[in-house]
Amino acid sequence: MNNFVFRNPTKLVFGKGQIAKLAELIPAGKKIMVTFGGGSVKANGIYDQVCRALEGKDYIEFWGIEPNPTVETLRKAIATGKEQGVDFLLAIGGGSVLDGTKLIASGMVYDGDAWDIVLKGRAEAAIPYASVMTLPATGSEMNSGAVISRTETKEKFAFYTSFPEFSILDPEATYSLPAHQVACALSDIYVHVMEQYMTTPGQSRAMDRWAEGLLQTVIEIAPRIKENQHDYEVMADFMLTATLALNGFIAMGVSQDWATHMIGHELTALHGITHGASLAIVLPGTLRTLRGQKRGKLLQYGQRVFGITEGGEDERIDKAIACTEEFFRSLGLSTRLPEEGIGEETVEEIRRRFNTAGVAHGEGRNVTGDVAAEILRSCM
Amino acid sequence: MNNFVFRNPTKLVFGKGQIAKLAELIPAGKKIMVTFGGGSVKANGIYDQVCRALEGKDYIEFWGIEPNPTVETLRKAIATGKEQGVDFLLAIGGGSVLDGTKLIASGMVYDGDAWDIVLKGRAEAAIPYASVMTLPATGSEMNSGAVISRTETKEKFAFYTSFPEFSILDPEATYSLPAHQVACALSDIYVHVMEQYMTTPGQSRAMDRWAEGLLQTVIEIAPRIKENQHDYEVMADFMLTATLALNGFIAMGVSQDWATHMIGHELTALHGITHGASLAIVLPGTLRTLRGQKRGKLLQYGQRVFGITEGGEDERIDKAIACTEEFFRSLGLSTRLPEEGIGEETVEEIRRRFNTAGVAHGEGRNVTGDVAAEILRSCM
Repeated sequence: MNNFVFRNPTKLVFGKGQIAKLAELIPAGKKIMVTFGGGSVKANGIYDQVCRALEGKDYIEFWGIEPNPTVETLRKAIATGKEQGVDFLLAIGGGSVLDGTKLIASGMVYDGDAWDIVLKGRAEAAIPYASVMTLPATGSEMNSGAVISRTETKEKFAFYTSFPEFSILDPEATYSLPAHQVACALSDIYVHVMEQYMTTPGQSRAMDRWAEGLLQTVIEIAPRIKENQHDYEVMADFMLTATLALNGFIAMGVSQDWATHMIGHELTALHGITHGASLAIVLPGTLRTLRGQKRGKLLQYGQRVFGITEGGEDERIDKAIACTEEFFRSLGLSTRLPEEGIGEETVEEIRRRFNTAGVAHGEGRNVTGDVAAEILRSCM
Repeated sequence: MNNFVFRNPTKLVFGKGQIAKLAELIPAGKKIMVTFGGGSVKANGIYDQVCRALEGKDYIEFWGIEPNPTVETLRKAIATGKEQGVDFLLAIGGGSVLDGTKLIASGMVYDGDAWDIVLKGRAEAAIPYASVMTLPATGSEMNSGAVISRTETKEKFAFYTSFPEFSILDPEATYSLPAHQVACALSDIYVHVMEQYMTTPGQSRAMDRWAEGLLQTVIEIAPRIKENQHDYEVMADFMLTATLALNGFIAMGVSQDWATHMIGHELTALHGITHGASLAIVLPGTLRTLRGQKRGKLLQYGQRVFGITEGGEDERIDKAIACTEEFFRSLGLSTRLPEEGIGEETVEEIRRRFNTAGVAHGEGRNVTGDVAAEILRSCM
């Protein structure tokens, strides 16, 4: 086990009817900016609940944080927030709204352009912010990371800032999510866990068990969500699992990978493909290409998550990778690039981008442009 | 899943050589009281490491917090702390030292007698405190609870206060622990998980998986620790599992039991039997007596933790309970009262105490004095 420092101070307020607690959770005397994406929160009643809870508070609204939030939009929010003397942000929506709000919170106390913060990878300070999370997927509600895009250059990078003060998670908010969004969310959760698990074996028995437990949970709830998106118990586990998959709880003392995410981000940046959908394509490719390096963990994963115990080692690894791809297909997602109309040109562009930047991703820092291209070619 | 609020702000500083970080972790300008148990930290080198790390800081030492810390001792520490203007506490030792320090921290800002705080069950305030945890077991290093005894009345109760600011966990500190303490610690960890798991089934798939993962980890590492207490990787998982078993991470949205602990506390209060050793006796008795109520979870537990899939339901439940008792015996612990020289008189005294207090413990609030007596009689 590696040495590590863990701290996660976010207060999680979970369950039915918890949005009403907003009034007591936000400190008195704050000038609040409430941030939103599109209008879905108006259709599903969340907006009304938030307005009722904020009655009597001093707040303004900022609308229009898009999926894969762009610095171009967020610059406007930062300017408005500074003009209006905002000192507390409340994000209402999914991971994109919350990620965008993290850059707004950081940009509010930064003198230069907000894109600088993204390029530095870490904000030095931020005003306090919180969330009502309506789309479980990114774990953004209980971590300090965010991923921001820049339209003009088709770039997409992660940065870190402070943690949310609190996040309210009401599983009933997920009842009206479009089926494709749910599928992408489940894919995102699954791959978050895999990025922290599919690494060198034997680093921590406890962390391995917890990662495997979340994977098993996602596999178990996925068909049940498809069957009935109004089953509170199932949607509650969906929502909780999303948070636990990326709040540091399964990352203690173990190495991480994230090569799949880095390649997936490029697919999103170049083709606008939804984040979770990009991961469903790339992850099986990463496993196929790096099966030698990840041999030990692939065997453990096959056995513990899919119950694969029969056959020789290579056969079991084949099965584990096939089960993984089959899981994504069961969600209704593509797992091959041509299904999304993506071809060799994109593979070459991503190879070029990685090589030009001189990066090498993954646990072993060996996923260069050439290896990324190999991964993507295995997804043809 | 029940509604819940979760927040755990403690910073965990985990790994080899981390005690040296004390100097930077404690805020500047504090008047520190360092609290200790007996002299074991002098024998194993921890004391020297702490002194080196605190060089130049303004601190006093308080020695003599005993196993099952007593209010009688802690009152002295509170008086000393008040006299000396202490405003930061640092506990060096196991759960007893840390639990005692929690009462000192709370008593420092309370005008009356410290036992009042224990009886109220919750401190209204406390000065900041932190720990170097040397005996993984209680989870006290990352939670806000503490259990305090009162010698004159042979009472033992839990109370809650603020969380530790930080806790340093160096697995090397566990190399020199006496084998019996390790066995009791493993028992304690196991039962902490069971108290949060062996309840109504189907409350949360994610929490169930995490609890089962910790139980599997404890079962897996126990024989390895016996074999080689200097295996860093195994001792690191031992230490991490102890923390994760009682820091709230497996308690989200699920009901809890704690009847075994309440009965165990009485055995400790009456006979001075080590906490973990008391639980190894009581838990199998609780499962035997409440097997009807806990039927569904016992079947799940048997299958997922011990791989019991053969036989009828009652047979599988028998096996699951037998495997549980066998696990404690494999640690070298007693699982029957007569082995510890405890007889009918104690059973009657515990029945009388529960009935006099009018308490009914456990998830179902049905473990009255009579049921506690039944549980204990099944341990004869």
